[in-house]
Amino acid sequence: MNKTNVSKLNAFYAQSGGVTAVINASACGVIETARKHRGRIGKVYAGRNGIIGALTEDLIDTGKESDAAIRALRYTPSGAFGSCRFKLKSLDTNKREYERLIAVFKAHNIGYFFYNGGGDSADTCFKISQLSNAMGYPLQAIHVPKTIDNDLPITDCCPGFGSVAKYVAVSALEASFDVRSMMATSTKVFVMEVMGRHAGWIAAAGGLIESHGIPVVILFPEIEFDRAKFLARVAKLVKSHGYCTVIVSEGCHNADGSFLAEQGSRDAFGHAQLGGAAPVVANMIKEALGHKFHWAVADYLQRAARHVASKTDVKQAYELGQRAVQLALKGHNAVMPTVERISDVPYKYKIGVANLADVANVEKFMPRDFITKDGFGITEKCKRYLEPLIQGEDAPKYKNGLPVYVTLKNESVAKKLPAFRLK
Amino acid sequence: MNKTNVSKLNAFYAQSGGVTAVINASACGVIETARKHRGRIGKVYAGRNGIIGALTEDLIDTGKESDAAIRALRYTPSGAFGSCRFKLKSLDTNKREYERLIAVFKAHNIGYFFYNGGGDSADTCFKISQLSNAMGYPLQAIHVPKTIDNDLPITDCCPGFGSVAKYVAVSALEASFDVRSMMATSTKVFVMEVMGRHAGWIAAAGGLIESHGIPVVILFPEIEFDRAKFLARVAKLVKSHGYCTVIVSEGCHNADGSFLAEQGSRDAFGHAQLGGAAPVVANMIKEALGHKFHWAVADYLQRAARHVASKTDVKQAYELGQRAVQLALKGHNAVMPTVERISDVPYKYKIGVANLADVANVEKFMPRDFITKDGFGITEKCKRYLEPLIQGEDAPKYKNGLPVYVTLKNESVAKKLPAFRLK
Repeated sequence: MNKTNVSKLNAFYAQSGGVTAVINASACGVIETARKHRGRIGKVYAGRNGIIGALTEDLIDTGKESDAAIRALRYTPSGAFGSCRFKLKSLDTNKREYERLIAVFKAHNIGYFFYNGGGDSADTCFKISQLSNAMGYPLQAIHVPKTIDNDLPITDCCPGFGSVAKYVAVSALEASFDVRSMMATSTKVFVMEVMGRHAGWIAAAGGLIESHGIPVVILFPEIEFDRAKFLARVAKLVKSHGYCTVIVSEGCHNADGSFLAEQGSRDAFGHAQLGGAAPVVANMIKEALGHKFHWAVADYLQRAARHVASKTDVKQAYELGQRAVQLALKGHNAVMPTVERISDVPYKYKIGVANLADVANVEKFMPRDFITKDGFGITEKCKRYLEPLIQGEDAPKYKNGLPVYVTLKNESVAKKLPAFRLK
Repeated sequence: MNKTNVSKLNAFYAQSGGVTAVINASACGVIETARKHRGRIGKVYAGRNGIIGALTEDLIDTGKESDAAIRALRYTPSGAFGSCRFKLKSLDTNKREYERLIAVFKAHNIGYFFYNGGGDSADTCFKISQLSNAMGYPLQAIHVPKTIDNDLPITDCCPGFGSVAKYVAVSALEASFDVRSMMATSTKVFVMEVMGRHAGWIAAAGGLIESHGIPVVILFPEIEFDRAKFLARVAKLVKSHGYCTVIVSEGCHNADGSFLAEQGSRDAFGHAQLGGAAPVVANMIKEALGHKFHWAVADYLQRAARHVASKTDVKQAYELGQRAVQLALKGHNAVMPTVERISDVPYKYKIGVANLADVANVEKFMPRDFITKDGFGITEKCKRYLEPLIQGEDAPKYKNGLPVYVTLKNESVAKKLPAFRLK
């Protein structure tokens, strides 16, 4: 690992991509830890709306926030400084942007760059570290993992995932109890659509309710959708149990690669924007089997659901932010703190570290042996993996019936450079 | 109020219509209170799958359940004995069914009938009371209110509603924080569809997050949908705040009465089965204003969400079940215990009683002065009404990351009558 000398420099923190119930817990870990090392780290700036804030020199001075406000980040979902979907491509293609970032860092005496995101931002973080090195600017770039998709390599899990998994399992359990109550004369199949474009980790969490006696069918993005096999499975479960619950991943696709439901538009990263697989599946069941259905699309509700977050997830999100700062203070560069699992039961882990060179552009899918042979469920091995990640509750405080979530002041830092036009 | 003499008779309890997060809390109130009066009330039987259980003489002996299991009902969403959508029409049309009910009650020495449901079951309960009276069979029929739609008259609110309202407000708050994080480069409008076919009470709960600074547009079933006005409102909020959240009721409809989204099928009560207004609204915004959107349809998740239930709601659900038994023991017939609000702040209420003759077939819509003049929001008066109903948390216990919900043994009572064929 690349080590550089450190002195009292400022830090820059940015949130990237889709936000989660616990990304602010990582922000809390970064800022609280930096505040404990005021002799080494000066200001902690945050990018307003992620990396765009760095490009446009729209920096937030987190020093203006009280300790109580920063502490409250641990309990607040979403990205408190704003996030963005803005992918920096290769150093050649986006040379202008990369050089601008270094210029902004230089202007504000920023020596530590903490980038909190998924695979795309790990890649950006790595490239910025390479460029600063090439340009002779002493920057330490540390990636803080975050993605509900749980698809980063090396780390055992990704902050944000455990809470979505808990939300999905709790919601599916509750809705399944509901359907079971109604099946005699009404709804027999409940279809719940969950996020996960390429990897079925989130959908897999629905399988955790099987141990509560619920008949579940999971449609993973890793398994090609087979209409006949799927309908036969649903028919069988409704016959044996009177009802069943279907968890369908937004990334579920046909043999020809087409998604069960595409809205046609694409996001800034060029990914198809999905939604609506649940009604497609539900209507398919109604037409083929005649069963009355209900369907839900949880969408943002699942990733924002801090009220039912996993305590394990919140803790790890915080610790990874904390460790990122500790790694920086130890002189590390181009690394990402990771969760290293030591044992399943009792669940034990430690915080490790990975080189970004090994993280960038690698997507971690569900191992085939986590999915049952028929492709519709999760194996015991998968359950052993998932169960620790949803353990524990860490409810926010409530006031007047609603959770107390913090909205920061987000005061701007004075600009020092000419304006920069985003293309 | 009609009073009859009481002696040691058995009781029959049934759950009707769509279940809720707290209908089992009412069951708990009924059964625990009956158990405290063993000298007056013999067995408490429950209908397997609601009133169908009575018609088919498929009775459950709740006496086989431990005190701990009955206590756990208070924390368990859904209908523990099964519910049904099975509407008994007029005494003439369904004479055969009404007479069968009386025959089953007679065969099992049932003198108390507790029917836990919404408007339709209040009507059924009232008719059964009339018929038993006409037939000279001494039955006391007590209705226990339950409906997430909050549309029963006389009672200030209906058990089930407060918890859905809390779910909607909490979820909308969390998702709005999410959108606010993403608005710079991505999602600017979040559309959340909620239940409420005719009455906008549930949608109204979304308005409670305005005091957290969230720009919200609500589409009520009480207000005809006006596309141009709606789009202008969304455009204005996105301009002023950068984003907005839309809460759309499933019952939102056009001037010609057509729903924004109809799936075409109808349920056993002849109501259109709705779903999918959210994607319709979201795509409308995208086409007209170009804003990137996300949408969610909470469906069963909202009414099953015991994990985030309102403590006030759980308490009232229990107390209404409890009071139903107390009313029966006092000799009441054809009545329904109600919530009578005494004051908003501090919230005070008492349990009152209404005659079923005044309850049956009356639907309570949102008063016009609960909705803002422009039709897109809630007034201060509405907020004062709603806020107490979502107060307090009453989380279930968790084990291995999931809530501990009880599944009863539901042991059958031996049949005494010839089989009855449901038409």
